[in-house]
Amino acid sequence: MTVFGFDLDNPLLAAVAWCQLTEPSDAVAGTLIAHLGPSEALHWLDDTIGGTLITNPPIETSAPRWGQALAGGIARWSTRLAVCDPSRDLEILRRLGGTLLTPTDPRWPRGLSDLEVCAPHVLWVLGNPDLSARLARSVSLVGARAATAYGEHVATNLAGSLRDRGFAIVSGGAYGIDAAAHRGALAAGGDTLAVMAGGVDRLYPAGNLSLIERIAEVGTVICESPPGASPMKQRFLSRNRLIAALTPATVVVEAAWRSGALSTARHAANLMRAVGAVPGPVTSMASGGCHQLLRDQVAVCVTDAAEIAELAGSSGADAAPDRSTSATDTRATDGLDPATLAVLEAFPARSAIDVDTLMREAGRPLGEVLSALGLLELRGLIRPDGASWRRASTVQKQ
Amino acid sequence: MTVFGFDLDNPLLAAVAWCQLTEPSDAVAGTLIAHLGPSEALHWLDDTIGGTLITNPPIETSAPRWGQALAGGIARWSTRLAVCDPSRDLEILRRLGGTLLTPTDPRWPRGLSDLEVCAPHVLWVLGNPDLSARLARSVSLVGARAATAYGEHVATNLAGSLRDRGFAIVSGGAYGIDAAAHRGALAAGGDTLAVMAGGVDRLYPAGNLSLIERIAEVGTVICESPPGASPMKQRFLSRNRLIAALTPATVVVEAAWRSGALSTARHAANLMRAVGAVPGPVTSMASGGCHQLLRDQVAVCVTDAAEIAELAGSSGADAAPDRSTSATDTRATDGLDPATLAVLEAFPARSAIDVDTLMREAGRPLGEVLSALGLLELRGLIRPDGASWRRASTVQKQ
Repeated sequence: MTVFGFDLDNPLLAAVAWCQLTEPSDAVAGTLIAHLGPSEALHWLDDTIGGTLITNPPIETSAPRWGQALAGGIARWSTRLAVCDPSRDLEILRRLGGTLLTPTDPRWPRGLSDLEVCAPHVLWVLGNPDLSARLARSVSLVGARAATAYGEHVATNLAGSLRDRGFAIVSGGAYGIDAAAHRGALAAGGDTLAVMAGGVDRLYPAGNLSLIERIAEVGTVICESPPGASPMKQRFLSRNRLIAALTPATVVVEAAWRSGALSTARHAANLMRAVGAVPGPVTSMASGGCHQLLRDQVAVCVTDAAEIAELAGSSGADAAPDRSTSATDTRATDGLDPATLAVLEAFPARSAIDVDTLMREAGRPLGEVLSALGLLELRGLIRPDGASWRRASTVQKQ
Repeated sequence: MTVFGFDLDNPLLAAVAWCQLTEPSDAVAGTLIAHLGPSEALHWLDDTIGGTLITNPPIETSAPRWGQALAGGIARWSTRLAVCDPSRDLEILRRLGGTLLTPTDPRWPRGLSDLEVCAPHVLWVLGNPDLSARLARSVSLVGARAATAYGEHVATNLAGSLRDRGFAIVSGGAYGIDAAAHRGALAAGGDTLAVMAGGVDRLYPAGNLSLIERIAEVGTVICESPPGASPMKQRFLSRNRLIAALTPATVVVEAAWRSGALSTARHAANLMRAVGAVPGPVTSMASGGCHQLLRDQVAVCVTDAAEIAELAGSSGADAAPDRSTSATDTRATDGLDPATLAVLEAFPARSAIDVDTLMREAGRPLGEVLSALGLLELRGLIRPDGASWRRASTVQKQ
């Protein structure tokens, strides 16, 4: 006698059933399934609810009050027995042309294992289901829905430049920064993945529907809640941990003090992922959360795609260029020793100066002054003028 | 037989002479004077130059090649014997109405002792010479000469707000951020100190002359080089270490990658002073140096006067408010437990919902749903509607 109307021994159907019975991040269900597998865990639940009373928990854990937690789980899951129908939701996914991924699938994102007992039971995927390889080189770009033109501009550019460097762009499909990041990746002809809080048939928000459908065509749309699930606040918060876990690095482009993007950043930090924050004007409330992440040292300050690539990529190959030695920003005085610089600085802007005055002004003895004059003439910074010297005309005095 | 034309045993004249003979940060002179005092050190120099050859250095130090360093020092200082005339420069200072401070003066800034053998020998001061007490509660605000309107706006506001909190504002009197910081402090009716690279009679830059003269009237202008000294590059760099040493905290408001303000920040970090950097748009080159300081973790991200006060002030009294609990930014849902939030989120935007549907949508058992309904009604977030419930009209669904 079973309370379920399907074959519990089919592991795929059993995993979908757990997805339907639970909310995301249900650690009690996750612990059961980690120990027993989805089918045996469901058999145990079936027996318990069906009246074959199990006095002892089916597994032992070190968690305090595990028996009590399990009883709470049964109470929660029981509220959804009537709507638990794996075949119905798989048919909805099939009609949408989607793919169901389970943790044993080679395409399953490896990063999700770091979520341990809070990892999703299955993923409902629209578009390209090959997640594992693409997410190995990827960045999550997240931020405020109430973004400014500055934030959207930066998100679009960063996404495009990161695509050019071969990174897949992950975000949440929301208004503001999320949409700008997806659009920037798409405009660069590239791969982008949207992780949704509701079901594959409840894409949200409605205003981004054409964008999300486009992502499903050339990239991937990912849901952890089953078809029919509406995007509720708790699901957004759980969705944020997925975004953090899927990629090696999460970057917050613009976020106010209480933006949900900050929860994604903190999830990423807790998962030992790299976290970046893009600064903005201190006069803009929309960057307040980014600045707080920097102040709290949760995030590293990142200002361009090279710095984000360094954060997210393999060390060495993706190291950001050192700007202090950049070839585009050199000065004729670079590399001169202090004595030579002191002699150069002692030169008046326009008039000539003799060696005795140079010695006194620079406070350097004759030998150093003569050696400096040779170096400076070689660099074209000064030129002789009779028995004196003067600055070469192309050089501006500071 | 002496090469000097004044009383070497007068410690004030001797200190001024060392100021005239050396460039700032001459560690060799500093070491001699630290061991012998200015007068005896000058006697030794007089004997050495005058021909009474001293084979051995007058003091022993652990510095490698100390004898060689000393010979180099003698060569440098000798270039300026002809212009060494303490009385002349003291007369210039007197005519300008200024004050000479020596390290033994109780008004001498205590922070300068951290510069050790690179500390100035004397300070030439215009305006209020009481430095010690005022600098105990002070902040250095520095930044680019090529500042943007954003940077100048922020510098002016920060200086004014810090003045309101009783901080003296120290800067370098230059164009751009420096001038904005001084002006912000002056506009707040307050105390500000400008540290110059040249002599008191060579105030620089000319375009800021009226500003610097105003600072000398209500605040203080400080020079470490003697009258007549022109503002040379090396003196700017040495001046930056003074700005860093004078205050408990240095904040860079806006600086490009190669701005001299970055050297001030690095001096401050080396001196164990607190260092802050104000972020800006990543699209602005003028904030690139600030962002680099944040990336290198040389500086803490600061966005307002409260955060700078926390950095520079006494711990506790000047702690910045925690924005996450600020009274001006609360929500009706603050403090609700996860189960209650989940029940609230399960409510549709406009229509009514019954308890069975709530249990299923929220995935919560009857007891938790009933308890949540009570709490939510108490907060005015929902209201009964026959046997069902609906959201109270003032609440927006996320």
